[in-house]
Amino acid sequence: MAGKVVLHYFNGRGKMESIRWLLTVAEVDFDEVFLTTREQYLKLLSDGDLMFQQVPLVEMDDMKLVQTKAILNYIAEKHNLHGKDLKDKLMVNIHSEGLMDLMEMIMMLPFAADVKTKLDNIQNKAKDRYLPVFEKALSGAIYLVGGRLSCADVQLFECTLMLEEKFAGILAEFPKLQSFRDMMNRIPAISRFQQPGSKRKPQPDDVYVKTIMEVFDIKSPFL
Amino acid sequence: MAGKVVLHYFNGRGKMESIRWLLTVAEVDFDEVFLTTREQYLKLLSDGDLMFQQVPLVEMDDMKLVQTKAILNYIAEKHNLHGKDLKDKLMVNIHSEGLMDLMEMIMMLPFAADVKTKLDNIQNKAKDRYLPVFEKALSGAIYLVGGRLSCADVQLFECTLMLEEKFAGILAEFPKLQSFRDMMNRIPAISRFQQPGSKRKPQPDDVYVKTIMEVFDIKSPFL
Repeated sequence: MAGKVVLHYFNGRGKMESIRWLLTVAEVDFDEVFLTTREQYLKLLSDGDLMFQQVPLVEMDDMKLVQTKAILNYIAEKHNLHGKDLKDKLMVNIHSEGLMDLMEMIMMLPFAADVKTKLDNIQNKAKDRYLPVFEKALSGAIYLVGGRLSCADVQLFECTLMLEEKFAGILAEFPKLQSFRDMMNRIPAISRFQQPGSKRKPQPDDVYVKTIMEVFDIKSPFL
Repeated sequence: MAGKVVLHYFNGRGKMESIRWLLTVAEVDFDEVFLTTREQYLKLLSDGDLMFQQVPLVEMDDMKLVQTKAILNYIAEKHNLHGKDLKDKLMVNIHSEGLMDLMEMIMMLPFAADVKTKLDNIQNKAKDRYLPVFEKALSGAIYLVGGRLSCADVQLFECTLMLEEKFAGILAEFPKLQSFRDMMNRIPAISRFQQPGSKRKPQPDDVYVKTIMEVFDIKSPFL
């Protein structure tokens, strides 16, 4: 296999954070190039590195990969984190798509005009639509699918952290999710990724939002 | 394998249409149950059929499947329409994700307030960001990835039809895409699916929009 994995993205979570988590759990080391100026973005475009003019961009295995879900899928397949057969892969994908829908709502919050309404909506959907599904899947099982760790578990763990940051105590009614979170926390790579100095990114701040708007030449919040 | 495939969705394109196209090309016959009332939706919810309270719902192989991309992936894998190895699957997924981004923009138009602005934006993105990628992929190749038909080709074909409905002549500057469209049109299953009386759905109309808003209890267009 070719050289080190290199992630090109903003210095913040966004769509790249799930990729950082998955690489971490797969114990794949990576470097990061942070997009901070529009010139950098235009250079990537003119070099033809961004197939659909979008980041995340991930350099790995001598390829320049785009599209978050395609990248996650590839890493998961390659590192045995994607279900052992067709039906397990299907169930991993179903859980994973649901988790990404939920995380995307949180991801878009810094660009929203009516944050309070959106936060309430996310909390309601998390408690009513999403968390009960995962609580049920974890009843009598350690992992979401097929009795073994998959990318869906990594995303579920990431998602529980994101939810707890926004809604303290949201897991109170979900004992299986609490046990799952505690079990995942004991995985050494996951534990290390939460220590200071790791490549895990903090919650978005004004600098993050301002950088994205400058790089993409966006004049006003788009939600 | 278990009985016939049954699709539960509105009597319109939406997120189900790509699934209908893929099943058609895979030569898998399917039945359809159309959601027309809120009561039907509430019944599906109370029966526990909708994992994330959303449609599409596809009954196949004794399972009740949700999440469009997970369903497409499963059908593609099962019917040999998903690339022959890890890297081809990755490239199929990258193309497929791009196509779904583009088609989703068109899909949401009936729910938009400022249709003209959105149409212009879609046309610009199609011509500038998306179609050149596929034109390039098809230069010297019959199919998008790995020299064989995949779900990405089926989605590209569906997407060219959608674009031409909205923007007549949009393929004029893309000769490879024109040849691709003509070649795909000659596949018997694809040709049949475009004949009157097939299960292909027309462009969304007021009834389609009204039905969705009633079923999901939405009071106003959400874009």
